[in-house]
Amino acid sequence: MARVATLVELEERKRAGFVSLVGAGPGDPELLTVKALKALQNADVVVVDRLVAPTIRALAPAGARVIEVGKAPGRPSTPQARICAILVREARAGHRVVRLKGGDPLVFGRAVEELAALTAAGVAFEIVPGITAALGCAAAVAVPLTGRGERRELVLLTGHATDGAAEHDWPALARPGRTLAIYMGVGAAPHIQARLLDAGIDPQTPLTIVENGTLPRQKVLTGRIADLVALVGRHRIRGPAVIFIGAHPLRAAAAPVLVEAA
Amino acid sequence: MARVATLVELEERKRAGFVSLVGAGPGDPELLTVKALKALQNADVVVVDRLVAPTIRALAPAGARVIEVGKAPGRPSTPQARICAILVREARAGHRVVRLKGGDPLVFGRAVEELAALTAAGVAFEIVPGITAALGCAAAVAVPLTGRGERRELVLLTGHATDGAAEHDWPALARPGRTLAIYMGVGAAPHIQARLLDAGIDPQTPLTIVENGTLPRQKVLTGRIADLVALVGRHRIRGPAVIFIGAHPLRAAAAPVLVEAA
Repeated sequence: MARVATLVELEERKRAGFVSLVGAGPGDPELLTVKALKALQNADVVVVDRLVAPTIRALAPAGARVIEVGKAPGRPSTPQARICAILVREARAGHRVVRLKGGDPLVFGRAVEELAALTAAGVAFEIVPGITAALGCAAAVAVPLTGRGERRELVLLTGHATDGAAEHDWPALARPGRTLAIYMGVGAAPHIQARLLDAGIDPQTPLTIVENGTLPRQKVLTGRIADLVALVGRHRIRGPAVIFIGAHPLRAAAAPVLVEAA
Repeated sequence: MARVATLVELEERKRAGFVSLVGAGPGDPELLTVKALKALQNADVVVVDRLVAPTIRALAPAGARVIEVGKAPGRPSTPQARICAILVREARAGHRVVRLKGGDPLVFGRAVEELAALTAAGVAFEIVPGITAALGCAAAVAVPLTGRGERRELVLLTGHATDGAAEHDWPALARPGRTLAIYMGVGAAPHIQARLLDAGIDPQTPLTIVENGTLPRQKVLTGRIADLVALVGRHRIRGPAVIFIGAHPLRAAAAPVLVEAA
């Protein structure tokens, strides 16, 4: 049996500075968890990815210091080591730091590097989960992610890797029995379509693309896996988007859904 | 281009009765989304799975009618057709109905049957996503679900099927490069361990079991995949639990985590 932190220890750590790694969800501010909202409202310092919606950042108190990090068009992105250093510095100064990341912090969020830095520096932290993009987009347009019997697995994967399009075990992904939810897949659409078709996926497999899911400018496209590249091109999809392979939206959802059939 | 519902149409549908299919998250009431909390607080009728924590049900208004459905020890579970009929009946009576399900409604939640019934009956609905168990448990005990380069996929799967232990593409699941998060896997632990080892998984692959994740009685066990059955037996794990294969918790999380090494 290993360490059990007492409540007193936890309180002491909080006074010494504390980092909440908070998932901001898919974009709609109402999709923050209550816990995430409270952490944000109590923050002294908010270290936020530039991709997080302004309506969510606006929930931080007026007195909080907001530090933007991450990627922005036409500007160099903040190196990960720099982000880690900021978190450690602000926590050591005794602040309640919220590190706000899109979606869920533990899903494709590079949380590991930040948590490792906090651990190495002896800074206490908590992780507040968020609605990850796949689940937020699926709910917004009523895409059933699993189905009894026929689809027993949901696979979240990235289309993009540091060195270009990501490689995966395509033959396994191409077999029926699972829904794929591909993050950061728009730029790699030709790669994804070619690899899945080469691996033997049924070309009629349902495809749904949700761009800017849960936001007012949400766009939904449906077709078949063999239409992926054509749809992305014709509708000028730039992302952020989630590409679902294996499911179509149910049609009676009350949310204003724009469906453009291929 | 297909149907776009106008705001007026949406308002009319709401007056005519409306179903919000709401994810209750993993257990901690603070892990409801703001949108889910509002839907619950405005409900006339709440149709709730028996597994949803009493502290979450207590968020419904005092005047709301609560209808319990689903599984309970020693009692027959409510047939799915009966649940669908209740939803349609209550919506047609003009009520704001919240259908509250553990976790996220679209992940292993049998939402499809309920949405199909609502669609067939012409009842309008919305889906409010929830923190699914894998993400809630991972955040509670700091299990990194993806890692740059080495783990580019997160697979959510069920250990249980209607007819017993669920079958999967075990050789694909056994290869490195992904984290598995297994739902309803405690009863099928011997099956899961045997199938993964037979399929050639590295016996040293990290294993983390989180029982009652995010609740005060949360329990965390860590070991290797080859220890799965022994850990479940020795610590009398009964579930609800998520079994993570491929990752261990980071140690500095501030949440009171009980880690028992194998």
